[in-house]
Amino acid sequence: MFQEYDVIVVGAGHAGCEAAAAAATMGSSVLLITMNMHTIAQMSCNPAMGGVAKGQIVREIDALGGQSGIVSDKTMIQFRMLNLSKGPAMWSPRCQSDRVRFAEEWRSILENNPNVDFWQDTAKNIIIEDGKACGVVTSLGIEIRSKAVVLTNGTFLNGLIHIGEKNFGGGRTGEKSATGLTEQLVTLGFEAGRMKTGTPPRVDGRSLDYSKMEEQPGDEVPAKFSYTDTKPLAKQRSCWITYTNQDVHDVLKTGFEKSPMFSGRIKGLGPRYCPSVEDKINRFADKDRHQIFVEPEGWDTVEVYVNGFSTSLPEDVQYAALRKIPGFENAKMFRPGYAIEYDYFPPTQLKSTLETHLVKNLFFAGQINGTTGYEEAACQGLMAGINAHRNVNDLDPFVLKRSEAYIGVLIDDLINKGTEEPYRMFTSRAEYRTLLRQDNADLRLTEKGYEIGLASNERVEAVRKKKQETEDIIAKLNAAKLTPDEINPALEAIGTAPIREKIAIAQLLRRPQISIHQLLAASPVVTGLLAEYDIDSVQQAEINLKYDSYIEKEMLLVEKMNKLENLAIVENFNYDGVTSLSFEGREKLKRTRPSTIGQASRISGVSPSDISVLMLYIGR
Amino acid sequence: MFQEYDVIVVGAGHAGCEAAAAAATMGSSVLLITMNMHTIAQMSCNPAMGGVAKGQIVREIDALGGQSGIVSDKTMIQFRMLNLSKGPAMWSPRCQSDRVRFAEEWRSILENNPNVDFWQDTAKNIIIEDGKACGVVTSLGIEIRSKAVVLTNGTFLNGLIHIGEKNFGGGRTGEKSATGLTEQLVTLGFEAGRMKTGTPPRVDGRSLDYSKMEEQPGDEVPAKFSYTDTKPLAKQRSCWITYTNQDVHDVLKTGFEKSPMFSGRIKGLGPRYCPSVEDKINRFADKDRHQIFVEPEGWDTVEVYVNGFSTSLPEDVQYAALRKIPGFENAKMFRPGYAIEYDYFPPTQLKSTLETHLVKNLFFAGQINGTTGYEEAACQGLMAGINAHRNVNDLDPFVLKRSEAYIGVLIDDLINKGTEEPYRMFTSRAEYRTLLRQDNADLRLTEKGYEIGLASNERVEAVRKKKQETEDIIAKLNAAKLTPDEINPALEAIGTAPIREKIAIAQLLRRPQISIHQLLAASPVVTGLLAEYDIDSVQQAEINLKYDSYIEKEMLLVEKMNKLENLAIVENFNYDGVTSLSFEGREKLKRTRPSTIGQASRISGVSPSDISVLMLYIGR
Repeated sequence: MFQEYDVIVVGAGHAGCEAAAAAATMGSSVLLITMNMHTIAQMSCNPAMGGVAKGQIVREIDALGGQSGIVSDKTMIQFRMLNLSKGPAMWSPRCQSDRVRFAEEWRSILENNPNVDFWQDTAKNIIIEDGKACGVVTSLGIEIRSKAVVLTNGTFLNGLIHIGEKNFGGGRTGEKSATGLTEQLVTLGFEAGRMKTGTPPRVDGRSLDYSKMEEQPGDEVPAKFSYTDTKPLAKQRSCWITYTNQDVHDVLKTGFEKSPMFSGRIKGLGPRYCPSVEDKINRFADKDRHQIFVEPEGWDTVEVYVNGFSTSLPEDVQYAALRKIPGFENAKMFRPGYAIEYDYFPPTQLKSTLETHLVKNLFFAGQINGTTGYEEAACQGLMAGINAHRNVNDLDPFVLKRSEAYIGVLIDDLINKGTEEPYRMFTSRAEYRTLLRQDNADLRLTEKGYEIGLASNERVEAVRKKKQETEDIIAKLNAAKLTPDEINPALEAIGTAPIREKIAIAQLLRRPQISIHQLLAASPVVTGLLAEYDIDSVQQAEINLKYDSYIEKEMLLVEKMNKLENLAIVENFNYDGVTSLSFEGREKLKRTRPSTIGQASRISGVSPSDISVLMLYIGR
Repeated sequence: MFQEYDVIVVGAGHAGCEAAAAAATMGSSVLLITMNMHTIAQMSCNPAMGGVAKGQIVREIDALGGQSGIVSDKTMIQFRMLNLSKGPAMWSPRCQSDRVRFAEEWRSILENNPNVDFWQDTAKNIIIEDGKACGVVTSLGIEIRSKAVVLTNGTFLNGLIHIGEKNFGGGRTGEKSATGLTEQLVTLGFEAGRMKTGTPPRVDGRSLDYSKMEEQPGDEVPAKFSYTDTKPLAKQRSCWITYTNQDVHDVLKTGFEKSPMFSGRIKGLGPRYCPSVEDKINRFADKDRHQIFVEPEGWDTVEVYVNGFSTSLPEDVQYAALRKIPGFENAKMFRPGYAIEYDYFPPTQLKSTLETHLVKNLFFAGQINGTTGYEEAACQGLMAGINAHRNVNDLDPFVLKRSEAYIGVLIDDLINKGTEEPYRMFTSRAEYRTLLRQDNADLRLTEKGYEIGLASNERVEAVRKKKQETEDIIAKLNAAKLTPDEINPALEAIGTAPIREKIAIAQLLRRPQISIHQLLAASPVVTGLLAEYDIDSVQQAEINLKYDSYIEKEMLLVEKMNKLENLAIVENFNYDGVTSLSFEGREKLKRTRPSTIGQASRISGVSPSDISVLMLYIGR
């Protein structure tokens, strides 16, 4: 009843949607299998995209030709650029989304891709022949064949939901869990583990008193995620900030003995950096309050997400504690928060393409790899979709380096270090974060996305133009000079030292106190000089000029490291033949099978002396 | 954690949404409990509202102040008035809906009702004290108290989905079933049964060849459901018609031995008038084709509903058979059709308010009462919501007579005759169908809806104006005359006999060949006479004039019957004390506890002589 597909994608969350869209856009025939056609791209946790380091990932997905940025732009209700007071490496776009519209937009994008077919069912088994994934068997018992399979099961594999002392099977609240796949994969030799995540209660916005909270409006001039021509918001909805207090904590503590986390009923480890509120109280006993972000779930709905109040305490404790929060005195819940345990597969079992070592043409992406976060899931889906397509067409792997993208950092971390708890991206995980900025994701990645047939012609033309313009602007700002008469009044107004003689505009711009916007406002010379250029190019030039010394320093580091990164190790390298490797190093190398010396050096348990030994063998 | 509510509504389908909205609008505090906040008002079967007899029900719901008409109007993608070639009693409005928008609009209406609260959970038990429903216990173990409970569980109670030889628990495809309630109610003495319904496969519209089908566009001048100021559609989407053939039937027959219906695996009876395609082939073996309506699921989606192809045959048989249908040669399925068995409670256990005889303040509405159809469910929800509110406030029951509304017919049929198979409304079920037209639902019901505090002031003002205008127009059309010179050319053009002398316009209008639109077009006298009136009033006057003899005849019948309807029987009437009742009659009367002699006369098993005996006792 089914054709043989190039790629079957199991699951239609952030990872599955990006995987399906990417492989299909590049030309693969794709079947997207979802348990429920009505819940494609459901935001199961908070109604937001982006944030610190995560916003950069969305920009990278977009630059490569993925869809998350476009979907976010079209369905956002608020936009903020976080960390604007810090250096540009820290600037992080974040939006609040309309949950319903977000899902609708994703479904529409997928439906409009002629290479994407849909099938509502649950994958029970992978068909494996000669060590290769060749399709899936569904819970209806249907065999569907394909050349590659991408698993993006999220929290559904043997999902178990906990609220206080109660627990029940489910992939998300109100939805079924999925069984069968873990069991088969373990039989095949895969290692599986349990992880845990959680979500806060949802409340009725009509029952909140916003006068007791701080308003958090969107940016006055909102930006957006996508480098395409999506429109920034004309109007926005505000979020609100309030705080827990000692009363809240006291009430929550009354539920601790029934907590599934503290009692040990939950075996899986939860996300350290997105802890439950009971965890925060427990771990940071000295803090007398924790911040709560009150986030609307969409343009029209009264449903509100209580960000910062993730919990699996008994629902009556959740309720009583909520009502001690300023503004929540009369809060009504729509549903309680809960914790969910699910199966994941330690990602050290994956290649840098997200293909499994054990089964060819089988890819894992998203929470199944032990990550947390929509953005982390989406970018893995994108990379798995790209590489599934490339495998099917006998093309080289498409891998991003740690110096090229947060996506590269994420996957490199996962496959080499694994993760004991849900892995979340941070800027601190990227050693080259001055290079991996949200403003230059297109310059870093769009040419690559174009080369592999994912990013459109229009996109690459836009990037080339931006690149050329940026260079032109920098040249002009280096060449053109301002006289003291022309600029000193403005410099004084800004509060920075006046100049004594003519000075290149570029040199002025390197002063931390001075922005290009100020120069444009103050000087007709600057305005005239830059009139013909796009504002994005002007900002790009400004960042490059202001931070050129940092950027250069990191570029040198990258070059140095790339020497190691470029030393390839053949896939079937015989580590047992290298007697002088340490025992642990050999075992880890055999498990991870790094494709370069650089990657080998990042595997935990592989020592510098192991690396030296390897480099000798590789022929240096 | 919860306040005590006036009314708890369990389930948020068509019945539950109307029940919650009605009780809340009238002033009750309402808690709506749903298994999933994302699936409120999900259209689980076809994306359409209305149709023959069903469209009349939607108009009645609207006239009373319910919401289904408004939601339908705001989310429709096509409108057609069915049966326009027949008499006005048969005219039936029907629309195609955008499935996603329909659900969204309902949720928005409920969220905007300050008296409606929401809770995502599953009701497991009814709290019963002193024979009264006092709330529910949920699957989370939470007790929520209320003064009345309305159960609208749809197909979820012990739902079992069948596809070929496979079956699995579920309330709808991809969703969980609900357990616990049936078991409790049976323990309490309720009789429960099993019913069955089904749904066709959904297919990918991109894979269909519409050039092989007949287009079925919407009406050129689309009307709408609601008597409020909702807007008729400016653009519409077409449906398409195609047919099964002998090849299709032959393929389907290959699956018969695996059919859960034919094998006896399905115990419940299915809807006779909405049969599966295998049922149609089986029962009407001489028919060489069956009509298939190809219905888009919304404005933008490519998903298509294959109306007329409901089936629970194995999915590969469904698929192979589909592909033999003209236009479906390359069809791709999104999901297979399936049958679902679920628990219902024979509705003879209900009062005419939809309250159960056994437990006070416990109401049942929708499929739980053995009905099928969105409209049938919605109107029961409305009536249960109204009566729950009235019970809580010690107000008289609100009951519609058979002569007042299809809703009255439906409930009277259910509680007196019960139903062995899913009950669907037909015009033939209404003995006074000339009175129960779609055009006059407002005249019949809005004053009643207003009196009980459901229909708004605006609505009742509009009806009063329409009524007055209609009377004025009829008076004018009776008084004003046309001369042969004025009208004969038009009469000849229409093909009806010319007049010899001056004649009242009303008299001309009684000719079946002549419509008011024709007279308006032909005669400046008529145009001038009616210029000041609303077109709805003009049409109302036309219908009243044209059909006045039929209407009068039925009104006389109603009056006659109402004498019996008005003969009340006290609720605790001692049938055992009436020795001359037949054995069967007494048993049925004791079970059904009719509230009038009229109702008693319609109970199957109660003979005319039983009625005579009863009338003697009642005091005639």
